[in-house]
Amino acid sequence: MAVDTVAPAAVDLGPATALSCRECGHRVPLGPVFACEECFGPLEVAYDLPGDPAALRARIEAGPANIWRYAPLLPVPADVADKPNTNPGFTRLIQADHLAAELGVDAGNLYVKDDSGNPTHSFKDRVVAIAVEAARAFGFTTLSCSSTGNLAGAVGAAAARAGLRSCVFIPYDLEQGKVLMAAVYGGEVVGIEGTYDDVNRFCSELIGDEIGEGWGFTNVNLRPYYAEGSKTLAYEICEQLGWRLPDNLVIPVASGSQLTKIDKGLKELIALGLVEDRPYKIFGAQAEGCSPVSRAYKDGHDVVRPVRPDTIAKSLAIGNPADGPYVLDIARRTGGAVEDVNDEQVVDAIKLLARTEGVFAETAGGVTFGVLKKLVADGRISPSETTVALNTGDGLKTLDAVAPTTGVSATIKPSLDAFRAAGLA
Amino acid sequence: MAVDTVAPAAVDLGPATALSCRECGHRVPLGPVFACEECFGPLEVAYDLPGDPAALRARIEAGPANIWRYAPLLPVPADVADKPNTNPGFTRLIQADHLAAELGVDAGNLYVKDDSGNPTHSFKDRVVAIAVEAARAFGFTTLSCSSTGNLAGAVGAAAARAGLRSCVFIPYDLEQGKVLMAAVYGGEVVGIEGTYDDVNRFCSELIGDEIGEGWGFTNVNLRPYYAEGSKTLAYEICEQLGWRLPDNLVIPVASGSQLTKIDKGLKELIALGLVEDRPYKIFGAQAEGCSPVSRAYKDGHDVVRPVRPDTIAKSLAIGNPADGPYVLDIARRTGGAVEDVNDEQVVDAIKLLARTEGVFAETAGGVTFGVLKKLVADGRISPSETTVALNTGDGLKTLDAVAPTTGVSATIKPSLDAFRAAGLA
Repeated sequence: MAVDTVAPAAVDLGPATALSCRECGHRVPLGPVFACEECFGPLEVAYDLPGDPAALRARIEAGPANIWRYAPLLPVPADVADKPNTNPGFTRLIQADHLAAELGVDAGNLYVKDDSGNPTHSFKDRVVAIAVEAARAFGFTTLSCSSTGNLAGAVGAAAARAGLRSCVFIPYDLEQGKVLMAAVYGGEVVGIEGTYDDVNRFCSELIGDEIGEGWGFTNVNLRPYYAEGSKTLAYEICEQLGWRLPDNLVIPVASGSQLTKIDKGLKELIALGLVEDRPYKIFGAQAEGCSPVSRAYKDGHDVVRPVRPDTIAKSLAIGNPADGPYVLDIARRTGGAVEDVNDEQVVDAIKLLARTEGVFAETAGGVTFGVLKKLVADGRISPSETTVALNTGDGLKTLDAVAPTTGVSATIKPSLDAFRAAGLA
Repeated sequence: MAVDTVAPAAVDLGPATALSCRECGHRVPLGPVFACEECFGPLEVAYDLPGDPAALRARIEAGPANIWRYAPLLPVPADVADKPNTNPGFTRLIQADHLAAELGVDAGNLYVKDDSGNPTHSFKDRVVAIAVEAARAFGFTTLSCSSTGNLAGAVGAAAARAGLRSCVFIPYDLEQGKVLMAAVYGGEVVGIEGTYDDVNRFCSELIGDEIGEGWGFTNVNLRPYYAEGSKTLAYEICEQLGWRLPDNLVIPVASGSQLTKIDKGLKELIALGLVEDRPYKIFGAQAEGCSPVSRAYKDGHDVVRPVRPDTIAKSLAIGNPADGPYVLDIARRTGGAVEDVNDEQVVDAIKLLARTEGVFAETAGGVTFGVLKKLVADGRISPSETTVALNTGDGLKTLDAVAPTTGVSATIKPSLDAFRAAGLA
């Protein structure tokens, strides 16, 4: 964990200048560390950002149709777009007028940010792409992570593309489909006899051992870099709205990292002069069966009490979310909220989004749009304000959620009479 | 089928001026017809295309990051990007140096066009998006198709987004996953007791019946428009190569429509002066278990003899391909070929592409990259030429293909000793 094992002179991560503790502000050189040596607070990337907003905007707009258009705002070298990586991002922002009509939002005011279009069909491709650059900068040769699905696939794909070895760790009883998605890229996939928490603990042990030398764990020792990838969601949403802040954002909460980094991205855009400085509200979305942050929000607590997850939204099933306190702070500071929905509402919301806008979300998306529905219904989101809700994953990965209530309208013989009799004509 | 039931004055499909018979050149006004009334040949869209290449290129490059950047070259109204649709296209073109090294192609010469990034994760979103505009222009209120999977999902999503009713027809014994993908968008999904051919015949009956009034079948009465969507693959590939033709293209062949329309798109770019006029070779790829066009090519025939499909590449399993003769003609005229690979080679190619470039292809992609490998190995594709191969779909939809040979490297207890013992450290 000692910072002096890294030679700072060799590290080129573009505008990133140091790591800074979110709690006490202590600074250390860029390196594969994630906890402050003074206070054990989380380390974040600090930047030397560009000063001329017009030049920056022109540079971004002339950039590639992926996250590298924002390279001047990310911990990546200037030539990042020329290296082999998965080029995620610049996914669709959909003006969702049919959904708006069903929920009671004014036409033109509701948007879906659809991250299922990323290379492995979740937002994880964004964060992993940044982690790959950090891994290269620190000379790591193996990319690793603990995962219950989306992250393992994103790491496998990104490592294959980058020419790195990969070795990911999953609970041994993961569904076969998710194992296949992780293993098809040819890296090592190791099943751990235990829960996801056991997998996490094992990864921390590995980093401390000589086996782990040369290993970059996207969500552990590369976490400060990795997490910055979520800022690109904030950048894209504002650019796609015509360099404008939305009034409201609805974001799913697992560890809470994505929500806090989207807030960081919005604040950067304001500071850089790329968007007008005016208020926005951030809302967090959790599944009732794993809602530690929502409960703390409702109870008025600053501390998040861990829970044992029990929900179909497995990609959000983190019972002890590392960034939970920051989510609470952001929701309260911006005038947002943290809310939850039950599994039945999750499935209903998946089908609502598919039926109205043709977007098939995974269960995490069902959580987000279920919460959106609740917030509009009880007036916490105003119909006359601009709202963006995130779909962070793909329904193809969680087919079981919709299977019991989705199927053919009828099965008939191939004749017009049979079709008429089925009542669908 | 009579053309005079359509009022041409009401039809605004941008630069499209008429339908023209591919065989005899007979012209009819734009309408929901697909076969020439003179000779029963297939009808194609004819255009009044822009004349100034510099202005056109500038307009395209300033357009949105989806197929609508090419609206001046497609049968769609000028304001198409403002309407609710799925906005497919402008998918990644990946410089595949790791795959090139494995196959023996010179670095920098091999590219993967990855259409799994489309909204429903196959190239079908491109063609359906064009069919939706035709359906709107002709006043259709129901969008329909016969399908074995990818198309049904693309139609369901696009209809939901466009606010059209949808009713798609599938064989009754389709895998549950594909049924879910089609049904989740809330349209009608009708299982037909019979084979895919029975489904097709039933759809033709429906169009002739009063039930079918107001129904647009993407791949039947809207086929001339629908098929044009594949031209956008040609446009994107050339633009992403820096407005340059590749030397070789490897394209999967089901009905053959995609391959013929990519050729049409390339010829348009040459005629418009957007790319240099020089030779290119087009190669078609089929699965051995459904290789009627490949067999005809190898036998030197102009006629394609129908076969009964038996392959894991189900999205290519069309035994009687409508555009087979045109594929033969294009392969021979350009100096390409049509080749096939067996199911084992399909699976190997899926895993090769995943391992080298982090792209997880469906079985159709396995066919294409298996054929690419064969063509490079036997010298028909030169290592010193630029080659683009298409991945048209997503491995998540055909997990069964890789399941028997893909899985965890090891399952261990969460201890460093157990990890060492597994030999993965």
